[in-house]
Amino acid sequence: MSLKRIEQHYAFDGEQCKYSHYSEVLQCDMTFSIYLPSNKEKKKIPLIWWLSGLTCTDDNFSQKSGFQRLAEKYQVAVIIPDTSPRGENVTDDKAWDLGQGAGFYLNAVQDPWAKHYKMYTYVTDELTGIASTLVHNFSGKESIMGHSMGGHGALVIGMKNAARFKSISAFAPILSPSQVPWGIKAFSSYLGEDKASWKEWDASELVKGTDIPPILITQGTQDMFYPEQLEETTFLENARENNQEVNYKKIEGYDHSYFFIATFLEDHFDFHMKHLK
Amino acid sequence: MSLKRIEQHYAFDGEQCKYSHYSEVLQCDMTFSIYLPSNKEKKKIPLIWWLSGLTCTDDNFSQKSGFQRLAEKYQVAVIIPDTSPRGENVTDDKAWDLGQGAGFYLNAVQDPWAKHYKMYTYVTDELTGIASTLVHNFSGKESIMGHSMGGHGALVIGMKNAARFKSISAFAPILSPSQVPWGIKAFSSYLGEDKASWKEWDASELVKGTDIPPILITQGTQDMFYPEQLEETTFLENARENNQEVNYKKIEGYDHSYFFIATFLEDHFDFHMKHLK
Repeated sequence: MSLKRIEQHYAFDGEQCKYSHYSEVLQCDMTFSIYLPSNKEKKKIPLIWWLSGLTCTDDNFSQKSGFQRLAEKYQVAVIIPDTSPRGENVTDDKAWDLGQGAGFYLNAVQDPWAKHYKMYTYVTDELTGIASTLVHNFSGKESIMGHSMGGHGALVIGMKNAARFKSISAFAPILSPSQVPWGIKAFSSYLGEDKASWKEWDASELVKGTDIPPILITQGTQDMFYPEQLEETTFLENARENNQEVNYKKIEGYDHSYFFIATFLEDHFDFHMKHLK
Repeated sequence: MSLKRIEQHYAFDGEQCKYSHYSEVLQCDMTFSIYLPSNKEKKKIPLIWWLSGLTCTDDNFSQKSGFQRLAEKYQVAVIIPDTSPRGENVTDDKAWDLGQGAGFYLNAVQDPWAKHYKMYTYVTDELTGIASTLVHNFSGKESIMGHSMGGHGALVIGMKNAARFKSISAFAPILSPSQVPWGIKAFSSYLGEDKASWKEWDASELVKGTDIPPILITQGTQDMFYPEQLEETTFLENARENNQEVNYKKIEGYDHSYFFIATFLEDHFDFHMKHLK
């Protein structure tokens, strides 16, 4: 395997690292970031996945959220994938909401996207295998969270793998991608026009399932993409009809930025750690 | 006055804002950032100045340090100037350690720099006046801190205005600019070859003064610029000979990044708040 550590920084006593590797699933070179807490007491360490939003790389969350303080406080590892396949040979689009930086954490089936755009399998299989080699004393317990497109990704991956993840959370997520402009554009391109195939990648559909992990969602009222892209009605109705454990918090004044994420991140860590104990 | 708010984000209950204005001192348009805590108890609010390092703008500290959590916790306003005059009409240099992004917080006297490069007067006079209009219930008490070139700036501005600032702190500061490559290059350009004139901008000289505020410095041992650019011997010797209150902490493993700053920022806020009460 080509795994190579390209950055290492001490942060809050733990280590913030960046790795590069060749992805067999995505057929390109990828980078990801991971925080390993100090684990001075040599305990079993759980793992939280963070999935970022449109235009982001693994750097946004590692540099702008201040999560390392919380990950060290709670002694949990955090892994941050990139948001799409990358590179000159990877199909792209001029728009910032399609192609590179906009993988939507699904497996594309339509050309020209199908060759590289398999972020779902990359995260749930290939990167999962790599993570298990990097987190020493891994407890085997995992939770998943994300922001915007990555909030959609966290909900979809978490609900499709309900037995694996202990809890799911999201900041300002795309909750009904089949019904909003970002999702319709991405799903039309990656999945094709048959909307029946969109259902397995739509949190508002998946929330009808059984044995779904508890879900926490935080949404700011001054978010420039709310409600157009981040509309919650269908998701919350379907969750309620199916008796899912969903805590949807709407917060006055906050926007879509990492200032919003940084502010409420401790709530999300508190939530996940209850379920990862 | 041309002061214009160009960004506003809620963060930890307070407001992270960015302003633009025309600077009479620098003869160009400038931006700066300021955090205003929520002040729910309507108390008097002190002000901390943050000065950033080479290549930075006001965004680095506001986006990467996580300081808003601490500023809200302690109910202190924080203002972050840019690191130099800016714009197409402002003299620049191809190198990243001279010209735009590298103002060194001094007043240049040598052409072609003298027209715009007056960061010392900009910070201590013009921006000070603006800050006093933005911080409601300002207590009038101020402290100053910074990183690398901005650590030099904080020490120089703090010691040259010893009656004004209650405390000074720095992360990985340039302590002897007259003796290290970054400082020699900048001072030769901005001040000219007469090294006698460099002394009033060199922390190792200024620390020989009287009634200097207490100083806290944190330096990581794995900092790629230490000791070459950040050498501390002269400064600490002069501080000791003159009985200054200097706490110089060397921390194993940490580097020059904002991960280092984020980790030890609470120590610095604790230190300043003791003196701002």
